[in-house]
Parts: sequence; structure tokens; C-alpha cells
Amino acid sequence: MAEYTFNVEMACSGCSNAVNRALGRLEGVENIDISLEKQTVVVKTELPREKVLETIKKTGKTVKDE
Amino acid sequence: MAEYTFNVEMACSGCSNAVNRALGRLEGVENIDISLEKQTVVVKTELPREKVLETIKKTGKTVKDE
Repeated sequence: MAEYTFNVEMACSGCSNAVNRALGRLEGVENIDISLEKQTVVVKTELPREKVLETIKKTGKTVKDE
Repeated sequence: MAEYTFNVEMACSGCSNAVNRALGRLEGVENIDISLEKQTVVVKTELPREKVLETIKKTGKTVKDE
């Protein structure tokens, strides 16, 4: 199990909820912790980082310092 | 070429920009017209409706009356 942190541009709770929902549909995700204030998405998972990153990108949100 | 309209919950311009970005990456999309005010996403495309719907859903946004 690994924990990955992504810096994601999210402007409102609608944005962060969307990211949360998209990640929540992934099998193999243990925990999702999103901070709108810090603009961070922390994912605890068995999946490779690349798979999680790809899913976040499909939300259309901008990921900084990938 | 067909034009499909989806009712999508978008709370701010960050939300609508994300949907726009996700759809913009799809090959075969001719035009995207998003209204935050009307909560609509209008897509002109050669793709089947289902493919466009799936891409919108991957943004994590809620689509009403699919």
C-alpha cells in the first residue's frame, strides 16, 4: 500500500467533489483525502501512481508538478 | 455529425473548464458549448452519444437525466 500526493487545481467544492467521486470509482483505492485549501489530493492505494494520476487527469483538472 | 445536450452539475468556472478540457481531448469532437448558467454541455461530434457521456462522467461531475 502506498500514499501518493498530487497538487490539483480545484476552485470550489464542486471541483473537489468531482475529483473525489472519480477516484472513488477506482478499484484498489483505500483512502482519499482532498484539501481544497491546500489544493492537494492524497490517495492511499495498491494501484501504481500512474493509474491514479491518469484518473485525476480525466476529470479535466490541472495537476501541477506531476 | 450529431449534436448532443447533457445536463451537468457545474458549480463554478473551474468545474465547467474541467469538463471542457476533458471533452477537448476526445478525438472526433467538432464543437463544445458549455453554459454554467444553464448547466448544459452541448457537443457536436461524430462519436456515439454513449462515448461522450462516459467522458463527461469520468470528470466526476453529475449528469442529470442522462
